[in-house]
Amino acid sequence: MPDSQSIAVIGSGAVGGYYGGRLAGAGHDVRFLVRRDYHAVSASGLKVDSPDGDFVLTQPRIFKNSADIGPVDWVICALKATSIGDARKLIQPCMAPRTRILVLMNGLGLEDEFGRWFGAERIFGGLAFTCINRGSPGHIHHLAYGQVTIGHFQDNPAELAAAMALWSQSMVQVIEAPSLLKARWEKLCWNIPFAGMCVAAGGITTDLILGDPGLHSATATLMEEVITAGNADLKHHAERVLIDRDAVIDSMFKRTSTMGAYRPSTMIDFVEGRAMEIEAIFGEPLNRALALRTNVPYLTLLTALLRSLNKGRQN
Amino acid sequence: MPDSQSIAVIGSGAVGGYYGGRLAGAGHDVRFLVRRDYHAVSASGLKVDSPDGDFVLTQPRIFKNSADIGPVDWVICALKATSIGDARKLIQPCMAPRTRILVLMNGLGLEDEFGRWFGAERIFGGLAFTCINRGSPGHIHHLAYGQVTIGHFQDNPAELAAAMALWSQSMVQVIEAPSLLKARWEKLCWNIPFAGMCVAAGGITTDLILGDPGLHSATATLMEEVITAGNADLKHHAERVLIDRDAVIDSMFKRTSTMGAYRPSTMIDFVEGRAMEIEAIFGEPLNRALALRTNVPYLTLLTALLRSLNKGRQN
Repeated sequence: MPDSQSIAVIGSGAVGGYYGGRLAGAGHDVRFLVRRDYHAVSASGLKVDSPDGDFVLTQPRIFKNSADIGPVDWVICALKATSIGDARKLIQPCMAPRTRILVLMNGLGLEDEFGRWFGAERIFGGLAFTCINRGSPGHIHHLAYGQVTIGHFQDNPAELAAAMALWSQSMVQVIEAPSLLKARWEKLCWNIPFAGMCVAAGGITTDLILGDPGLHSATATLMEEVITAGNADLKHHAERVLIDRDAVIDSMFKRTSTMGAYRPSTMIDFVEGRAMEIEAIFGEPLNRALALRTNVPYLTLLTALLRSLNKGRQN
Repeated sequence: MPDSQSIAVIGSGAVGGYYGGRLAGAGHDVRFLVRRDYHAVSASGLKVDSPDGDFVLTQPRIFKNSADIGPVDWVICALKATSIGDARKLIQPCMAPRTRILVLMNGLGLEDEFGRWFGAERIFGGLAFTCINRGSPGHIHHLAYGQVTIGHFQDNPAELAAAMALWSQSMVQVIEAPSLLKARWEKLCWNIPFAGMCVAAGGITTDLILGDPGLHSATATLMEEVITAGNADLKHHAERVLIDRDAVIDSMFKRTSTMGAYRPSTMIDFVEGRAMEIEAIFGEPLNRALALRTNVPYLTLLTALLRSLNKGRQN
């Protein structure tokens, strides 16, 4: 059993609540910053339904202000990427000289921001492959999958080992990413084409993409562009291992064909009228692709459309 | 005053009703095929509000079946392009050996169909630049513009002169198109980028396209692609005069900037839940572009999205 660590979960929505709950179950001192559901969790605790085992935290340590959380060993930032503007102020009171931060959020470039604010050496990225929704206040539904790929922002193996140790007694499967940047781009190889097309084609599920020759073909072309842009960005960052184009395309389409009528989180936000994480998932990859002069016409048009569809939406 | 001609208007929606009404006002024997509004028009006539002068046809010649209309000098087909499958059967009873057909519809390639059915030498295309809506049954609102560009399918000047003569006493401004194919493509240079982006960006008006740098730029790129495809198609058809790229782009954006919060007809169909004319306006141009191996990534992606958005919709 490793040392119990103190952990601040900033952004206790479905993802923060679920993974924070799993870390509490592993014996860590987890303190949740809770805004929307404070009264419900205070009264009835945090309930989680999960294929890996239901659980209830009857008296979780919950806080309305991160100043009351105070300095911790680890910050897990699970804000929606559209709330990135709030992150620095919310996290600052939790920082001690050796505090580490796991950015458990969607999209590209977020760790760069955190690194500028708090120092690159203490920043990690977490990529959750999961399907988790909020139910009634204080109730989280973990529906499927759940593994988290974790990388260190500077790809320091000793630091990465420390991050893996944090999860060792949890029910969560964690996977080491030797290159965080490559892991981020590989996730985008699915998210940009599939989530993007599911939204732009009218709020449809992934099976309808696979079943329509025009959408299927456009999705494959988008994936090609993302791989091209990702490899240009990886080279630009002096990474030696690039994305394996054919293997990634093959595995992404094969995996999607097993997912049935899957609703990507961006598509759920779209059909439910909430703000979508467009800049983190589409805008920043596009900006890098254009800066590196890669040819990304589909990504350019798609991002312009998604930005328009996202106008005026609130979290 | 030219000879009075007998004219069958097939498809007496807003466009057919308006232009047929103007031809009746010019002294022609106009016979309307009316389906939806038959009882209203039968009881109260056909009313038109128009900036060029309101008018009422108190007792228009209306028919439920084109067999009752019988052979005429001219057929004006103003069906929605999504009803092209009905056109041949509806028009056939109106055909005499010298009957001419004006295809007053949106999109590319419709005259080719009519030519195969009835003989190319008698086919004309009409491009209405106008804003006309249906109001209550039997009531048409002509809001703005109204000129019709007319070309002969084989670009025969004598035939074109006959078509122009038909309109000479009407209140409608008609413009000769020496090349019908070029006129069709030039109209698509506006329709594809602006109507397409207004739909795919979420059902927005043209001013929002112009005011958003990403949408503005994507719209310009789409227009470039349409010009490239159009000029390839014009060359393929041995046309000598091509679309003037810079002049068309400049004039389309300038014209649009004077239009305010304009709602293209395809966008109105989209937001009102009706079938959009996707194959005629986007699908056929895309098919020709791909057959001629032009590079049209934006048009390809846009058409795939629009086809998806159009699924399951009815006229």
